[in-house]
Amino acid sequence: MKKISDSTIHRLSKYLHTLETLEKNNIQTISSEKIAKIEQITSANFRKDLSFFGSFGRRGLGYNVSSLKIQIQNILGLNRSWNIALIGIGNLGTALIDYNELKRRDLHVRCIFDKNPQKIGKKIKGLEVLDIKRLPEEIKKQIIQIGIITTPAPAAQHIADMLMDAGIRAILNFAPKTLAAREGAMIRTEDTTTPLQTLTYYLSHTKPATK
Amino acid sequence: MKKISDSTIHRLSKYLHTLETLEKNNIQTISSEKIAKIEQITSANFRKDLSFFGSFGRRGLGYNVSSLKIQIQNILGLNRSWNIALIGIGNLGTALIDYNELKRRDLHVRCIFDKNPQKIGKKIKGLEVLDIKRLPEEIKKQIIQIGIITTPAPAAQHIADMLMDAGIRAILNFAPKTLAAREGAMIRTEDTTTPLQTLTYYLSHTKPATK
Repeated sequence: MKKISDSTIHRLSKYLHTLETLEKNNIQTISSEKIAKIEQITSANFRKDLSFFGSFGRRGLGYNVSSLKIQIQNILGLNRSWNIALIGIGNLGTALIDYNELKRRDLHVRCIFDKNPQKIGKKIKGLEVLDIKRLPEEIKKQIIQIGIITTPAPAAQHIADMLMDAGIRAILNFAPKTLAAREGAMIRTEDTTTPLQTLTYYLSHTKPATK
Repeated sequence: MKKISDSTIHRLSKYLHTLETLEKNNIQTISSEKIAKIEQITSANFRKDLSFFGSFGRRGLGYNVSSLKIQIQNILGLNRSWNIALIGIGNLGTALIDYNELKRRDLHVRCIFDKNPQKIGKKIKGLEVLDIKRLPEEIKKQIIQIGIITTPAPAAQHIADMLMDAGIRAILNFAPKTLAAREGAMIRTEDTTTPLQTLTYYLSHTKPATK
């Protein structure tokens, strides 16, 4: 398998979102030019992103929206369900458990962990907060494939190591700290200040519309 | 000003993060090759991103870490402080008010709004929850430049319109809905399932490391 850039995967994820919207609006076919315009990229860029994965659409006829949607779902591994363990039950963790978009994508938070004795045993959105010590056994029992870390920064690498020890190869980290991944594992660190920097850039380099 | 792609801005934001880490570790100069390796891109890509904004570094000598950091901060508009209004006080909103990385970047949540009478008047992390009706006056009084929307999806466009009516040109939207921006305004919609799709892609196309 050829190495595909993060940016390509990121764009595929956006195309999928757009195709879902088009499908909801009963649009059956779309040209690469039109989809590129929606995504604010060039149609060559769009076609190149798809070309890594085979041949889609038919020259002159454009793309069938539903079938391209399914093909991108397959590429992204979204043609199946995934089980998630979430570690660190603060406000962000609680928000994520409740996040409907995850369920809609067949991404399911199956177990939640914390080390705080005052949280362990409580139920949040129907899930019992488990002692972090039980992580290895629960990961196996519940066939978890993905870990989400919402602990404070100092605990994050230890939790990532626990997850990788338990065989987890994919981790989404919200703690503001870069974590070391082992060979065969991927850790994505999310930083909410990043999209805000796109906005501060925009504000610094543009002027208000004239009325 | 030439139109710079979102991907370039996104990468500048990552370079900034890397340069901050290097500076903390007392590293004074770095070559484009080394920084490109950290970012997992080519050094040509790195140099091209910077070239949009002028000339940095000296051939054969590499980049001065501290001065490149400051220059990227300036490009991203992070050489000043910004005032934020946050609308919708659920778990995600509360998590964001408390997010230290924002303050560290001089991004300050100055006022918070909700329409729920049971929330209005309460204090969260030292900020009083204000009635959404007061948004227009508070935006002006507190000199707010950026809005963050953490309401449910059905309310999000109305809130965005209220913000734009009040002169806000930059909005970060966490509601799972694409919002329409007016001319002269930018709305970024964040979707937590996007980074998860990078992970499901990774799991679907790689195998565990052999031991």
